Amino acid sequence: MTGRIRMGLIGGGPGSFIGPVHRIAAELDGEIALVAGSFSRDAARSAEAGRGYGIDPDRAYPSVEAMFAAEAARADGIQFVTIASPNFHHLPAARAAIAAGVAVMSDKPMTATLAEARELAGLLEDAPVPYGLTYTYSGYPLVREMRERVAAGAIGAVRKVVVEYNQGWLAGAGAGKQAEWRLDPARSGEGGCIADIGVHAFHLAEFVTGLRVDRINADLGTVVPGRLLDDDCQMFLRFAGGARGLLMASQVMTGEGNDLAIRIYGETGALRWSQENPNRFEWLRGDGGMEIVRAADPGLSAVSMRGTRLPGGHPEGLLESLANLYRDFAMQLRGEPGSLVPGAEDGLRGMALVATAVTASREGRGWVDFTG
Amino acid sequence: MTGRIRMGLIGGGPGSFIGPVHRIAAELDGEIALVAGSFSRDAARSAEAGRGYGIDPDRAYPSVEAMFAAEAARADGIQFVTIASPNFHHLPAARAAIAAGVAVMSDKPMTATLAEARELAGLLEDAPVPYGLTYTYSGYPLVREMRERVAAGAIGAVRKVVVEYNQGWLAGAGAGKQAEWRLDPARSGEGGCIADIGVHAFHLAEFVTGLRVDRINADLGTVVPGRLLDDDCQMFLRFAGGARGLLMASQVMTGEGNDLAIRIYGETGALRWSQENPNRFEWLRGDGGMEIVRAADPGLSAVSMRGTRLPGGHPEGLLESLANLYRDFAMQLRGEPGSLVPGAEDGLRGMALVATAVTASREGRGWVDFTG
Amino acid sequence: MTGRIRMGLIGGGPGSFIGPVHRIAAELDGEIALVAGSFSRDAARSAEAGRGYGIDPDRAYPSVEAMFAAEAARADGIQFVTIASPNFHHLPAARAAIAAGVAVMSDKPMTATLAEARELAGLLEDAPVPYGLTYTYSGYPLVREMRERVAAGAIGAVRKVVVEYNQGWLAGAGAGKQAEWRLDPARSGEGGCIADIGVHAFHLAEFVTGLRVDRINADLGTVVPGRLLDDDCQMFLRFAGGARGLLMASQVMTGEGNDLAIRIYGETGALRWSQENPNRFEWLRGDGGMEIVRAADPGLSAVSMRGTRLPGGHPEGLLESLANLYRDFAMQLRGEPGSLVPGAEDGLRGMALVATAVTASREGRGWVDFTG
Amino acid sequence: MTGRIRMGLIGGGPGSFIGPVHRIAAELDGEIALVAGSFSRDAARSAEAGRGYGIDPDRAYPSVEAMFAAEAARADGIQFVTIASPNFHHLPAARAAIAAGVAVMSDKPMTATLAEARELAGLLEDAPVPYGLTYTYSGYPLVREMRERVAAGAIGAVRKVVVEYNQGWLAGAGAGKQAEWRLDPARSGEGGCIADIGVHAFHLAEFVTGLRVDRINADLGTVVPGRLLDDDCQMFLRFAGGARGLLMASQVMTGEGNDLAIRIYGETGALRWSQENPNRFEWLRGDGGMEIVRAADPGLSAVSMRGTRLPGGHPEGLLESLANLYRDFAMQLRGEPGSLVPGAEDGLRGMALVATAVTASREGRGWVDFTG
Repeated sequence: MTGRIRMGLIGGGPGSFIGPVHRIAAELDGEIALVAGSFSRDAARSAEAGRGYGIDPDRAYPSVEAMFAAEAARADGIQFVTIASPNFHHLPAARAAIAAGVAVMSDKPMTATLAEARELAGLLEDAPVPYGLTYTYSGYPLVREMRERVAAGAIGAVRKVVVEYNQGWLAGAGAGKQAEWRLDPARSGEGGCIADIGVHAFHLAEFVTGLRVDRINADLGTVVPGRLLDDDCQMFLRFAGGARGLLMASQVMTGEGNDLAIRIYGETGALRWSQENPNRFEWLRGDGGMEIVRAADPGLSAVSMRGTRLPGGHPEGLLESLANLYRDFAMQLRGEPGSLVPGAEDGLRGMALVATAVTASREGRGWVDFTG
Repeated sequence: MTGRIRMGLIGGGPGSFIGPVHRIAAELDGEIALVAGSFSRDAARSAEAGRGYGIDPDRAYPSVEAMFAAEAARADGIQFVTIASPNFHHLPAARAAIAAGVAVMSDKPMTATLAEARELAGLLEDAPVPYGLTYTYSGYPLVREMRERVAAGAIGAVRKVVVEYNQGWLAGAGAGKQAEWRLDPARSGEGGCIADIGVHAFHLAEFVTGLRVDRINADLGTVVPGRLLDDDCQMFLRFAGGARGLLMASQVMTGEGNDLAIRIYGETGALRWSQENPNRFEWLRGDGGMEIVRAADPGLSAVSMRGTRLPGGHPEGLLESLANLYRDFAMQLRGEPGSLVPGAEDGLRGMALVATAVTASREGRGWVDFTG
Repeated sequence: MTGRIRMGLIGGGPGSFIGPVHRIAAELDGEIALVAGSFSRDAARSAEAGRGYGIDPDRAYPSVEAMFAAEAARADGIQFVTIASPNFHHLPAARAAIAAGVAVMSDKPMTATLAEARELAGLLEDAPVPYGLTYTYSGYPLVREMRERVAAGAIGAVRKVVVEYNQGWLAGAGAGKQAEWRLDPARSGEGGCIADIGVHAFHLAEFVTGLRVDRINADLGTVVPGRLLDDDCQMFLRFAGGARGLLMASQVMTGEGNDLAIRIYGETGALRWSQENPNRFEWLRGDGGMEIVRAADPGLSAVSMRGTRLPGGHPEGLLESLANLYRDFAMQLRGEPGSLVPGAEDGLRGMALVATAVTASREGRGWVDFTG
Repeated sequence: MTGRIRMGLIGGGPGSFIGPVHRIAAELDGEIALVAGSFSRDAARSAEAGRGYGIDPDRAYPSVEAMFAAEAARADGIQFVTIASPNFHHLPAARAAIAAGVAVMSDKPMTATLAEARELAGLLEDAPVPYGLTYTYSGYPLVREMRERVAAGAIGAVRKVVVEYNQGWLAGAGAGKQAEWRLDPARSGEGGCIADIGVHAFHLAEFVTGLRVDRINADLGTVVPGRLLDDDCQMFLRFAGGARGLLMASQVMTGEGNDLAIRIYGETGALRWSQENPNRFEWLRGDGGMEIVRAADPGLSAVSMRGTRLPGGHPEGLLESLANLYRDFAMQLRGEPGSLVPGAEDGLRGMALVATAVTASREGRGWVDFTG
């Protein structure tokens, strides 16, 4: 593991789904190694998880504080930490990392509330460390390719964006452990679906178009009786400059898996991409023709190809997309330019979206300004 | 042609696209024959069109009035008339038909304005003749199959409907003859995209779900500078009983053809269908499975099969869908039950949608009641 | 119906599937009218069918002979006849038409046996009448577009062709009325699947590439026990000039509908098309790009557009494809150039394929010459 | 890395594509660690590669012999070796591993020639070590699911198998470094396309169906002039028990990426899967219905789920498929049951296929027995 960047993990205890996902993605390209963690606030469970990850038993810590203290004392201490604990824990975890001068890679949303996000942004201003947010889908090579093409004018000025994120796993009344904290305002924050997946869709729309939303008209609803948070969202968007947009996000679309999709229409062309079949997008050309752009096709941009490990026709998936964020973050840590990992500004916009949409929808305000 | 129902055509003059489409669809199943027409207000052009359709030269009339007068005097006069002239002409044409006691099959929208539609509905109440509206897409066998299945509870109570109608042919500043009258409020009415295709999407949503919209929040826009009518619409819907909905309709989605599509999510399943590939729909089952339901599959409903002419794997298309409306209309004319042809009530709802959405969007009212 | 070309029909009696299909397709464009028929050798049934088609009762004949005799005596007698009876009847029906000097549009295969086909070809040489074969799939606008493009060098010299025709309707032991005569050598001829659908695939391959097969290696099998004819075929092809090919045709591929598909690989590109989604094909370009070519796209050839009735995004299907053959046949009858309707030469090649493949496969000969 | 199984790598030197792929896949699940390698026969290049992989510089060896000698002397020496060098080197590398008592995971084909494969099989009998072959595609969860379902009778007795592997990267005359040794009989063996990808297709067909081929009729060709090995293969198959099959493999299908696909037709249903969209397969049911089975769907078999890391809708790809083979191999090394990694018998069958097909095709023998 010579020369690998050393990573700690907060969260990802026994039975966790997201912990191993971070481990796989971070280590995929051989540039990063998970070496320490505060996997659970229960010492025994943290130790158990550490054994599962195959790390040195001494480095499976019973608390975030213990981890940062012990690691700071080592010559080979962690260089960054990934925060994979529930939303309400994102701020304290990040605060501890910043205090220790350790870089942060955080699950989205940035924090549980907008106020917390602003606090965190302030901390990062006062004591800067590299800070990344795993808007995972922005790591797909073809998402990045679309971004490049829009920026290069391949579809002309953007006029309309339709972004949607359709899931069905909360369509039933009971939905298991993953659902539990997400449906609890105390742990998840004031947004349900909007905070869990709506912000992914929102980030994707801004990431690919390079535009910024400045007005929204939100319609958040709770479909399954008894819930305290939204589980179905629809939103009109208006981008600075006038482009129109539509955002859908739902967790009660029975039968849907993880259907994040975006369509961008410009004056002279359009792009369509769907996460469930991520290795291609459609390019509707201004001359009436339609092309299928495939991962690893000749002529793709350097930024797309740098996230592509296999030749055309050999599918890559979500783990590789997340690995691309880690690879970019490693570039950042090494002081190299070009990283596309979302940061605090993106995090703040997402939190502002949740706060603005929840309030505006609840109060039936119709169109409201969005300042991000 | 013994025994065929005799049809007249209003509009569909030389160079018309929609005239021959109606002729093909009406005659497809051998139950109806086009025998007369007022194809143009120019006598020579009407005669020229009549020759193109191969009808008796005496029955290509220079005016609607002339047609109804002459046909009424014949033993083999027309039994119904199809109105395929521009929107502003729908009311006078229908009025003349009603006065002559001739049944009416009309292109949508019902009329150019809601006031006109109400006038027409009144005329039909006072002097009833069979009246059908060619919401063409409701003739697809699998659209009807979805309607049957929703009604039979295949997906449980409907919770969310996403209907969209994406076209790109008006994305450029100039868009030819078809576009001309559609973009002129004097001939088209107060709605642009919403009246031209939005009402199709709206009808489809209500037709398939059997639900009625009772509130809307509309965002209509004009993307191409200089236009007087909307060319891009997005709308939140609320159905009586609480189901949520989203309607998109646009004619400036560069590169899109005729992408009408609907997704219906219920408590225990979902259906997804797209007009550009109309011979299948997806059924997301409550148990997590996914089926592709194909035209002519074993076990389809009688109403679906009666509109299916070919065995599985032999594609049928739009002309056959429209022909199914004509076949149903012929049933109505023969006094047989079971027709699913949309009628005046559907027409009124469409017109009300246009009026309500245009006003509410222009005035930024947010949510408004919709009474149809 | 002024000015329409007058058509008679042989076969297509009560309960027939293919009879109405021919009627719809022939009449679709308003250039042809079905006016007479010998629908069944049973006079009462022929009359019943005539009523169904809405023709003059006097022109529903009890025999082919009666039809030709009576029609010859009329000023408005039939100008061509469509043969839609079982294979064994194709020769006598065509012979009678030729004797009467009436043009022939025939279902494929040309006849029941190669010897018969040669006899028919001889008759046509001695007393020429326009003769067309309904290789229906060659009427699809995009099939014709592919043909144009291959001829224009869009994919360079053709190197490899994969054509397949997968059906499943004979996978079960019993398969209804449609199956009955097809599985009976006395009525169907010596080929089963190869004669029923293999010849479609073969014709398609030669039609699109413009190449001629000159060697085959056939593997015909009977999968369902007790059958007398092949129900599953696979064949290596070699085209004059050296291009390689593969032909699959099966009627026992459980669950398949009517999956006719072709892929053509050239030195600098490739085309892929599937009948079940006929309004698009894929064009793999030599530069590594991939385009979706859609019906009615800008830039399609005149020959493709002349068979396209609707704008992009409005699906057309099999009936319209067959109608394109009828429209071409009408051109032929009017003495206009440009018809692409397959003729006797194509019919002979199909019959030769059946005879050669059946014999070569039965005798295990491996590669054999194919002289067509 | 505590507790990880220690792996060495043969081949995968600087610039290698396949080396890093093996590293990623082997390490993906945290059960295996690459710790040593003989990456190149050039010591400097081997050392350079070792630095790239981040291993201990002492463990980047200049030769296979040096590696096995040094590793044997370590307490923490390698427990298995992955052979990723060109075909001609597979036998000597495996021989050295066996001599050292080290388990082997080998790229396919097993060796360059059938004689070599038999020699290797003999060595493995004499001095058994765990031996796996990376028929990578057999690691896809849905490939394994299909295998389970066929075995469980979901489609009844298998009647017909169509397997194809279409690539286009050798369509041009020059095709870069990857192509070089593949087109050289001295390094690649007597088979070109058949050995490179045909054996994948063959293995997939036998793996999924559980059947064994016992007769073949092969048509191998060289499309691009000047080549010494086949670049396009088509083959009829007959399975023991009588099922019919068709195998296509080509590297000159211009524009194709890595289109490995299989269709299996049984008496009561069928399955269709394509590698380029690997997270779903189609199940054509005997009752005429069609299902889409998706990765991680409820009800999938345990063997499929154990290779699935993410919830439904989160795509996994080729690296994860290969990782599944490594995970199974780790199970084998730990003495746990249930591994599905292909072994020497599969390797021998592949080599026999190449030898039999090359000879039979060259000599035009038609059908020949295949004894595997």
